[in-house]
Amino acid sequence: MNTSRCNTCGEKAVIFMRQHRLPLCKTHYLEWFIEQSERAIKKYGMFTHHDKILVAVSGGKDSLSLWDVLWRLGYQADGLYINLGIDGEDHYSLQSKNYTVSFAAERNLNLHIFDVAAETGKNIIQLYKQSQRRKGRPCSVCGVVKRHIMNETTRNYQYNVLATGHNLDDEAAVLFSNTLSWSVEYLARQFPVLEEEEGFARKVKPFCRFYERESAAYALLRGINYIEEECPFSDNSTSLYYKRLLNQLEDAQPGTKIRFFSNFIEARKKGALFQAPESEKVVLNPCPVCGQPTGSSGKCYYCRITAPTVVENNDDFPPDVMSFG
Amino acid sequence: MNTSRCNTCGEKAVIFMRQHRLPLCKTHYLEWFIEQSERAIKKYGMFTHHDKILVAVSGGKDSLSLWDVLWRLGYQADGLYINLGIDGEDHYSLQSKNYTVSFAAERNLNLHIFDVAAETGKNIIQLYKQSQRRKGRPCSVCGVVKRHIMNETTRNYQYNVLATGHNLDDEAAVLFSNTLSWSVEYLARQFPVLEEEEGFARKVKPFCRFYERESAAYALLRGINYIEEECPFSDNSTSLYYKRLLNQLEDAQPGTKIRFFSNFIEARKKGALFQAPESEKVVLNPCPVCGQPTGSSGKCYYCRITAPTVVENNDDFPPDVMSFG
Repeated sequence: MNTSRCNTCGEKAVIFMRQHRLPLCKTHYLEWFIEQSERAIKKYGMFTHHDKILVAVSGGKDSLSLWDVLWRLGYQADGLYINLGIDGEDHYSLQSKNYTVSFAAERNLNLHIFDVAAETGKNIIQLYKQSQRRKGRPCSVCGVVKRHIMNETTRNYQYNVLATGHNLDDEAAVLFSNTLSWSVEYLARQFPVLEEEEGFARKVKPFCRFYERESAAYALLRGINYIEEECPFSDNSTSLYYKRLLNQLEDAQPGTKIRFFSNFIEARKKGALFQAPESEKVVLNPCPVCGQPTGSSGKCYYCRITAPTVVENNDDFPPDVMSFG
Repeated sequence: MNTSRCNTCGEKAVIFMRQHRLPLCKTHYLEWFIEQSERAIKKYGMFTHHDKILVAVSGGKDSLSLWDVLWRLGYQADGLYINLGIDGEDHYSLQSKNYTVSFAAERNLNLHIFDVAAETGKNIIQLYKQSQRRKGRPCSVCGVVKRHIMNETTRNYQYNVLATGHNLDDEAAVLFSNTLSWSVEYLARQFPVLEEEEGFARKVKPFCRFYERESAAYALLRGINYIEEECPFSDNSTSLYYKRLLNQLEDAQPGTKIRFFSNFIEARKKGALFQAPESEKVVLNPCPVCGQPTGSSGKCYYCRITAPTVVENNDDFPPDVMSFG
């Protein structure tokens, strides 16, 4: 097999996907990528052209590529950018916001911007420092805050579904971590589609079968400008460690990552895995402040860490919406 | 914590087990190892002092240490050595047989020796070469042959249970492999105790919670002479590759291996995993030649590869028994 020639037209290939044994030129790669996205959307019944989709965009290659693909496929997809206020020397949040705003403006798309500091009085680092999880990194607090805002925006604006740009490397790393510890509760919730339930918006991950290098290649070849730096707090994170380890496995046996993820999904679909015993299921109650579901008996974690400001500002929601449409 | 002093008596420690944060001297390590073995035997209800146990011994550190421990604990444990006839330059089979025979003689224990070449007319390499699995290594054919002989010997001599020396590194590597591909059928059968069913003898793995270095340390400190070389065909095997990878994870996070294995076992016990759909269960029939269960509709794989000789020699079973008792 000639891996340097496009499998479709015989022109010079720009990418060779070892796990598919597939070399493609620029034109056919961009086509293939969009077709595969559509295929995943249909395979898992993610949404249709009648649905109102909210895409969580960070300014990175995955989420901007996802938004681009959905737009090209004619879906009704608006964006949500959460400004975390991580603005050290590299102005991470400022830069990623600029990329996102330019992207939306170029395509005349609607973008919601939620500014954590403006809404809660504190940026993510300050929220983290006043939280009880201030050991290590701000990632877990950041995760809680982002999930809360994404869920709230999806529901408050009556979107049918929230789409995130998680790629296969992300999904495989999470699956790997949950499998190493056999966290049944978490494994039970890992699926490309999470249905709406008990106050949680419907969530989908259309890129869950793309390798990270594939979505990077799409952004590059499509000419999307995105923030290349990772979040400054992600250095040496466990997730990056597992990603490197899975890449090691992939190098030794091409296709390991997609097989690991797909076979898990297939086994789950057949019901062969993770019938979490009823006794272990977490009971959820609505948070008395924001109304979102929480496993605690009082206020949810988000409302606890943002308490003074969120309560005062509760009437101010919804946040700014920039409409380029 | 002083990791160079025995946790029990304060003498100089010979081993420090990071995952237990436990340093021990020689005397207390040997004691601890035996106590932990007994604990695993009871925890999983493996056998009692009334049971007749057959220990599969290869001449390596794990199986000889297991036999030694069972003997010291007063269990009725006989040995089975399978001579595979792997006798290249390093005389692997000859050496491992000699270690096993000496071990049994020193302790006045009963040892069954099954000589593959004498019984089937061909050593394991010849059986492998005439099989349909002659791509790669003889390991899968070797596995079939050993399982067949172990099962047959256990049943023909009316042992209640077959014990093997698999350690945590072995179990974790198999679990890792089956998890990477989500092989539900295999995952469903991985447990420290496999009950007797449909022609399969009861099987137990009392060392499944010991790290490989722990059983090596036991053999060394107890003065057991064992074959240190690995089987010459195990070089670069997938199993070794996964073991190295798991050691990498263990180095980064001590306790990863035991957590990975134990949490899996606990999740299985709770019934949260691997309810293999009925439609996927393999139907087993007795082999028309040897009577052992097989998934094929005709002769079992062992009888197919050993056919000409096994049928003729069928009356010759049982094989030699060397009794030092």
